[in-house]
Amino acid sequence: MARIVQKYGGTSVGSVERIKHVASRIQRSKAEGHELVVVVSAMGKSTDELVSLATEITNTPSKREMDMLLSTGEQVTISLLTMALQEMGVQAISLTGWQAGMKTETSHGNARITDIKTKRIEAELSQGNVVIVAGFQGVSGSEITTLGRGGSDTTAVALAAALKASRCDIYTDVTGVFTTDPRYVQKARKLHSISYDEMLEMANLGAGVLHPRAVEFAKNYEVPLMVASSMVEEVGTMIEEEVTMEQNLVVRGIAFENDVTKVTVRGLPNRLNTLSKLFTALSENQVNVDIIIQNQYDDEHVNISFSITQSTLKETLAVLQNAQEELQFTDIYFEEELAKVSIVGSGMVSNPGVAAQMFAVLADNEVAIKMVSTSEIKVSVVVEEADMVLAVEMLHNAFQLAEEVEEAEIEAM
Amino acid sequence: MARIVQKYGGTSVGSVERIKHVASRIQRSKAEGHELVVVVSAMGKSTDELVSLATEITNTPSKREMDMLLSTGEQVTISLLTMALQEMGVQAISLTGWQAGMKTETSHGNARITDIKTKRIEAELSQGNVVIVAGFQGVSGSEITTLGRGGSDTTAVALAAALKASRCDIYTDVTGVFTTDPRYVQKARKLHSISYDEMLEMANLGAGVLHPRAVEFAKNYEVPLMVASSMVEEVGTMIEEEVTMEQNLVVRGIAFENDVTKVTVRGLPNRLNTLSKLFTALSENQVNVDIIIQNQYDDEHVNISFSITQSTLKETLAVLQNAQEELQFTDIYFEEELAKVSIVGSGMVSNPGVAAQMFAVLADNEVAIKMVSTSEIKVSVVVEEADMVLAVEMLHNAFQLAEEVEEAEIEAM
Repeated sequence: MARIVQKYGGTSVGSVERIKHVASRIQRSKAEGHELVVVVSAMGKSTDELVSLATEITNTPSKREMDMLLSTGEQVTISLLTMALQEMGVQAISLTGWQAGMKTETSHGNARITDIKTKRIEAELSQGNVVIVAGFQGVSGSEITTLGRGGSDTTAVALAAALKASRCDIYTDVTGVFTTDPRYVQKARKLHSISYDEMLEMANLGAGVLHPRAVEFAKNYEVPLMVASSMVEEVGTMIEEEVTMEQNLVVRGIAFENDVTKVTVRGLPNRLNTLSKLFTALSENQVNVDIIIQNQYDDEHVNISFSITQSTLKETLAVLQNAQEELQFTDIYFEEELAKVSIVGSGMVSNPGVAAQMFAVLADNEVAIKMVSTSEIKVSVVVEEADMVLAVEMLHNAFQLAEEVEEAEIEAM
Repeated sequence: MARIVQKYGGTSVGSVERIKHVASRIQRSKAEGHELVVVVSAMGKSTDELVSLATEITNTPSKREMDMLLSTGEQVTISLLTMALQEMGVQAISLTGWQAGMKTETSHGNARITDIKTKRIEAELSQGNVVIVAGFQGVSGSEITTLGRGGSDTTAVALAAALKASRCDIYTDVTGVFTTDPRYVQKARKLHSISYDEMLEMANLGAGVLHPRAVEFAKNYEVPLMVASSMVEEVGTMIEEEVTMEQNLVVRGIAFENDVTKVTVRGLPNRLNTLSKLFTALSENQVNVDIIIQNQYDDEHVNISFSITQSTLKETLAVLQNAQEELQFTDIYFEEELAKVSIVGSGMVSNPGVAAQMFAVLADNEVAIKMVSTSEIKVSVVVEEADMVLAVEMLHNAFQLAEEVEEAEIEAM
């Protein structure tokens, strides 16, 4: 018998039929003798529907009132799922964020969890109840708050930490974390396990899988996570610190994204505060910059290149033009229709040749590299968008990601 | 400047457009300098939609989980209405039942209000906020409860009492309380005022107007109620204790309903506990009995007649047949397709001839009377359903209800 927190996302509880299906999965876990706390999101598109109602009224809704509105979505799901369990003869009770003791900061719409008062949940567990908790929401004083992006994942991981659960299972619409995106690369293979840091670096593979905020939380509190499908009966991917059986693999996965634009600001005076001024101006205007490269071309001047998403190019150029007088650069140059491809793996730290191998594979396939950025467990390159899928496939082959490695079986779901 | 509680029902907030319309009415009341607390119901059919979701899952949902589910409906409305007000520049804040301090008994689905902790509402009012409160819901300990039928009306009246408001305005889809149902009787006239007791006796005229439970609450706490339309700009009907200007009118209104069935149990032994046994058996089987008449036909036997609604006839006959051995009656006789017509007015107490006048009007129009029942402010007769509308029209004429009486203007809305 273990104490397990499970989380089911919006798609998994998107209809009454799916809610019943989730209930039957919970029933089975309960029958195995586990103590269960289940976190759920709002049903399917219901959050979007609520947002659209608000939009019909105002373009600038107060964040407090949006929290009041949106928190109803999860409350509907918890009551329906609890009814479905009770109908199957499983003892269960639903709790809203405030009833579950999910204390947060006051900042509406994006509140951080400060504390969880687990007394009520513990009491319900000790009475044999499956406890169904509304994700994404909390309470600050007597004000309803929401946790913002990745909220329900974070609720689940935070509860697992506070309740000292032996595992947090994230059930979603994919069967696990893959070596790369299987929609693009046929040979993509599901990983049996992956470390927290690798998962974080693979974040854009995991957009629909697990929010980085929840992974960070899990890492900090050492909560073992499992990502698996809520629809298909298949072993998922374990995310945890020790990845013993696969540590011989240097590269664990390949992440990629398109719609990348590279911007180069040329002829900047080589001063101490140049970088700081440039990127402060951009961040103050909500332009998110990814890769940054600085190279000096004479004693007094530098060129700075950075990558942004295509959609923020217009804003970026406007910010730069406004700052031209202050920054005293010569001109701006940009390249569109690029893509970023990254190889990820914690084994890289001790394998200095990995980046070189990556560059060689790309060169052999005549893929031009526009930018390079490295971290301890990731190497990213920016290439032409037209080369993206080819690059990913070649790297996937070169690092032997399609090949099964002997792995330990993880605990059945 | 006055402190006023307003209540808008589900139809009045049934769409985003209607919510905006309600907001503009509130804006006007606020501009007049009033302190406003506004109670709202769930939008239009949204409660029905939630109930139907639950029904897809189970026919026997736990009452606690139904409260969890249904209370989201009003929470959606309060946030949207508050956004609409804020968009118009009106300072406003929404509060759920638990945030508004609406304490209730534990009995889910039909909880009675035990206390209202007005501290939060008073604080918001003193900051100049219009306070938008979710109707129909409360809290018992940290459990969400709902108040059952007439819940939002009751929330509004209870808040008016607790906040010592000078008035409680119930905005609905009719323009006030009428002398009789205007859908049947063209000459029906809107009353400018009516007493609590008269309103209670007129309850079936007011089905869509005001729940009897709210009227009782208002009577007990002497809260002046106004019923008016949320759509049309028209003076409504005041419900309060003193009805000075119309007290010369003996009959104030005529209530009626069809689908009445009369059941007679014949030849019951004349014992002390006969009535008690008979009606206990019926009430234990959820059969609601309206009029009851007992008449003795010899020293040892009585006949008992009572009226029920058509839909409960089958159940009633089953209950009686099961109890035949114990009750030892001879046989059962019933008449279907009947109707009840009632004249209501607090002036009747001091006018003993009113019932006689009613019987005379009906006799003159050849309407046969099947049953009679009287209270201090009401006389009801049961007649053939086919005679119902004629009877109502004749009584409406005979008691001069169509004629305008000089009345005091009530405070404008």
